[in-house]
Amino acid sequence: MTDVNGPDFSRGTQGCLPAVAQDAKTGQVLMLAYMNQEAFDLTVSSGRAVYYSRSRERLWHKGEESGHVQVVQQILIDCDADAILLRVEQEGAACHKGYRSCFFRELTSEGSRVIAERHVDPKDVYKNPKK
Amino acid sequence: MTDVNGPDFSRGTQGCLPAVAQDAKTGQVLMLAYMNQEAFDLTVSSGRAVYYSRSRERLWHKGEESGHVQVVQQILIDCDADAILLRVEQEGAACHKGYRSCFFRELTSEGSRVIAERHVDPKDVYKNPKK
Repeated sequence: MTDVNGPDFSRGTQGCLPAVAQDAKTGQVLMLAYMNQEAFDLTVSSGRAVYYSRSRERLWHKGEESGHVQVVQQILIDCDADAILLRVEQEGAACHKGYRSCFFRELTSEGSRVIAERHVDPKDVYKNPKK
Repeated sequence: MTDVNGPDFSRGTQGCLPAVAQDAKTGQVLMLAYMNQEAFDLTVSSGRAVYYSRSRERLWHKGEESGHVQVVQQILIDCDADAILLRVEQEGAACHKGYRSCFFRELTSEGSRVIAERHVDPKDVYKNPKK
């Protein structure tokens, strides 16, 4: 989908815009990753979240190894068309460390502390845990 | 707060990491902006969200003109320490267009459509609406 109302990838760094995945039922913010135009188009056409891995420099079909796909319920765009919000149904765990959400650490004045329990065994998530 | 458990700004583009603000009560994702180390430190020390405006190339004390501050309830860091999630109490509207959330447009197969009502008159939000 490349109409004037869609995300403006020319505003992104190296053609990538941040995309936030939020659990459509609970509202929990699951992760933040990046999409380029191709990843976005594949997300729209497949109904499954596809990101662009900047470290691996390739498309990243979320759940391709783990089965922990994100079924996209709704795609929202922000006022400047330079950020994307996916409301998803998350299979298993969003985080490669086994947590439901990648945001499992809270910052406190003493440092960070884990505020969630692992949802799955990290060994079952990714063979290659690098985003 | 610059301990080993905090965000790793060296992973950001030009020292900036994406920061998502979420309404702590409703779970609504309000906006996505960027922080550099200074903005982050000021957010921690003041308890109010401070971002770094990449377009204006300066710190952006959210609500500095509008009064629509974000009182920070909790700061979460993701697994890779390169994304920040603020759980906030939002005064007024997060969006300079007057919507409660910047994510007020849904993408459909026909383009985008507005799915929210304005929360405040945009004239009352920012004198300078540029992020």
